[in-house]
Amino acid sequence: MYKKIDNDDIRFLIDICGEEEVFAGEDISEDFSHDELGGVEKYPEVLVNVYNTEQVSKIMKYAYKNNIPVTPRGQGTGLVGASVAIHGGIMINLSKMNKILELDEENLTLTVEPGVLLMTIGQYVQERDLFYPPDPGEKSATIGGNINTNAGGMRAVKYGVTRDYVRGLEVVLPNGDIVNIGGKVVKNSSGYSIKDLIVGSEGTLGIVTKAILKLLPLPKKDISLLIPFKDLPTAIETVPKIIKSKSIPTAIEFMERDVILAAEEFLGKSFPDNTSDAYLLLKFDGNSKEDIEKEYEKVAHLCLKNGAYDVFISDTQERNESIWSARGAFLEAIKASTTEMDECDVVVPRDKVADFIRYTHDLQKELNVRIKSFGHAGDGNLHVYTLRDGMDDETWKLKLKESFDCMYEKSRELRGQVSGEHGIGYAKKEYLHESQSESYMDLIKSIKTAFDHKNILNPSKIY
Amino acid sequence: MYKKIDNDDIRFLIDICGEEEVFAGEDISEDFSHDELGGVEKYPEVLVNVYNTEQVSKIMKYAYKNNIPVTPRGQGTGLVGASVAIHGGIMINLSKMNKILELDEENLTLTVEPGVLLMTIGQYVQERDLFYPPDPGEKSATIGGNINTNAGGMRAVKYGVTRDYVRGLEVVLPNGDIVNIGGKVVKNSSGYSIKDLIVGSEGTLGIVTKAILKLLPLPKKDISLLIPFKDLPTAIETVPKIIKSKSIPTAIEFMERDVILAAEEFLGKSFPDNTSDAYLLLKFDGNSKEDIEKEYEKVAHLCLKNGAYDVFISDTQERNESIWSARGAFLEAIKASTTEMDECDVVVPRDKVADFIRYTHDLQKELNVRIKSFGHAGDGNLHVYTLRDGMDDETWKLKLKESFDCMYEKSRELRGQVSGEHGIGYAKKEYLHESQSESYMDLIKSIKTAFDHKNILNPSKIY
Repeated sequence: MYKKIDNDDIRFLIDICGEEEVFAGEDISEDFSHDELGGVEKYPEVLVNVYNTEQVSKIMKYAYKNNIPVTPRGQGTGLVGASVAIHGGIMINLSKMNKILELDEENLTLTVEPGVLLMTIGQYVQERDLFYPPDPGEKSATIGGNINTNAGGMRAVKYGVTRDYVRGLEVVLPNGDIVNIGGKVVKNSSGYSIKDLIVGSEGTLGIVTKAILKLLPLPKKDISLLIPFKDLPTAIETVPKIIKSKSIPTAIEFMERDVILAAEEFLGKSFPDNTSDAYLLLKFDGNSKEDIEKEYEKVAHLCLKNGAYDVFISDTQERNESIWSARGAFLEAIKASTTEMDECDVVVPRDKVADFIRYTHDLQKELNVRIKSFGHAGDGNLHVYTLRDGMDDETWKLKLKESFDCMYEKSRELRGQVSGEHGIGYAKKEYLHESQSESYMDLIKSIKTAFDHKNILNPSKIY
Repeated sequence: MYKKIDNDDIRFLIDICGEEEVFAGEDISEDFSHDELGGVEKYPEVLVNVYNTEQVSKIMKYAYKNNIPVTPRGQGTGLVGASVAIHGGIMINLSKMNKILELDEENLTLTVEPGVLLMTIGQYVQERDLFYPPDPGEKSATIGGNINTNAGGMRAVKYGVTRDYVRGLEVVLPNGDIVNIGGKVVKNSSGYSIKDLIVGSEGTLGIVTKAILKLLPLPKKDISLLIPFKDLPTAIETVPKIIKSKSIPTAIEFMERDVILAAEEFLGKSFPDNTSDAYLLLKFDGNSKEDIEKEYEKVAHLCLKNGAYDVFISDTQERNESIWSARGAFLEAIKASTTEMDECDVVVPRDKVADFIRYTHDLQKELNVRIKSFGHAGDGNLHVYTLRDGMDDETWKLKLKESFDCMYEKSRELRGQVSGEHGIGYAKKEYLHESQSESYMDLIKSIKTAFDHKNILNPSKIY
């Protein structure tokens, strides 16, 4: 149904982008055939590096005219196959559009190209006493990828998610037209919020070529609390009590001993404590030590009353870094501990997290498969991994499906959603479909058609 | 093209909702023929009060089948004709679906029907030490209306707008299907954000029948500063400097002497000071007096350095109420000072507000027409009113169009947007069209078609 790439197409791409930026067939690096998890594999027919919006627009116009599927790609750190070229065709690599274009201190905005890395943004604004709050564990992701999955991260409890920090976008539509959406304005009620539709659309509605991000003043201080508990359910059951006490920490993460040990091994560094089975890790930020102390003392007391063994306070930069860098490495550490894995990224109401985790513990025994998890207890978003270890192909497929079917069903029962922050992509389509009504899925399809009636931009993703 | 209402239709509505809830022809109160500003006038053919989602669904299924236009309606406090039945047909009055359904303190959510008034929500949560931040001047608006315009209000500088506080929605689609979107979850990356598309869609994509709102802990203290300046541009030019200083007040409002005098007359109450030509009104909130003091002292000093005559500090509840209730009455006070008026609700980047206001001052002289304004200096959203006073019909139409054409053009030049919070509705369609590219308007139309291919739900609004 789609046109196959031929020499004319390759010549066209070389004309637009230059010979050294176009790769076809065997010249395409294996990296571009999958994403971080690797469960979805397929090579594009041709890969092209782009450096500006006009190139993207010209390529899309050509693809639109010739009915060629196009897959936009950043750093490939996704986990659901959203940046894999399922139908071959053209892959547009946006990671070289990586310039910070403007810092506007009077409007507190940062204008960036989509290929800028999250860690680059973090460092750039911090050096200027400013703050870009979204904080996913994967700092080498591009901002374009973060916008396309509506990435959340660890500070969502207090600061919200990527969507809340996108003020304006430049987008190339499937037909190659360039549109500007929003801007530096703080409020906007001028027609449907196309900006919010593009955010989280996993590259299926348009290609983000520029973004205007909202910044905040950098909080002057932060303090972390590492709090050991006898087991994970006891730890997690404390979280709704913290919320109910009307303290809103910046972050509330949960972790188990196994995962900490894996991170210690992976990083070759030791964690401040690994003697208990389960931990909560909390962060508080503010503008003075006194402000923060008042908040965290209340919460520390509440945790001790609810079964915490102790409260370790970390207020030096060095110690904070050792804790949070371990937390940031959990995914890779678990990945390194097995042969293959897949992730269930459900989000449930905050008061249902303990139920869900208890369920995965039972499921692990019932199915005789290793299931490891960590995640954002403060916002209800869990990262749960089913591990392959020594299983053969057939057993692995079976066990993976069985465990995922059970977990997504449990999430539906608890009124959760299929994905908290990693998206649906290619790998989780079935579960989105099962979790939503037919009317709802019809809307999703109609919106896709409204933007891309030829279905050429990142087809076969989301639905 | 649309079917006209006949006796069968009325009998159907009576069957669903009861005789006392259905009004046709001359039995329809004049109130339902216009909104707050009254510039757009048209009676529905039949008005029906609904009490539950099933009634709304049944009516929409019937309207869909019979090709009857439907206009959803709350309290009618809108300013752009979005809730006026331009094509006659059925008007569904949702203001009697006004129950608070659930407060969930562990997830910090409040579930409400669409007809609950903003003031009811404010009081309900405050009594429980909780906080619903969006704070438009019009407290007798319904939450459904606020969701449909993505209302912003005075606290947007620090806390954001209505969209940021909607976690989940129950919506009746144009074909009568009921869909549930989002929920109590904090994060969500599960397909396109239909929730964000419905918010701000002015009743054209679906009818909101239930909303799950996000709450925050109530800040324990707030302090307001009233700061007189020699003129409005001097006052407003201070605002980007405040933002650049990395202080984020809860609110930064601007006002002129005339408008204060009008509010004093309208309310029969005096304002703390009315001797200067222009004022900034700032609010700071936090959990202790000391926290707030540190913040506001820095800002007060900065204002004095930039030409402020004085800084009046208001920290008693009584005094705060007298200031903020005057601020909340500005629209009605200006309205009471003339025979008719229309509003330009543009939003521009924060550092362009002074340019825009200076422009309206010049325009007032140039066109020989009274133009009054107040608004949200902290988020760039202006409310600018062209007043009719003693003009005859023809002159008024001419002057209004002339002044609006000029102001919207100026806003485009400053990279602003047509509406910051009041929406496009019927009255501002022309200006939205002029401000956006054809590609962008095509997307708007395609999204409408994706939801409502028969174009029966609130037709002829937005585009």
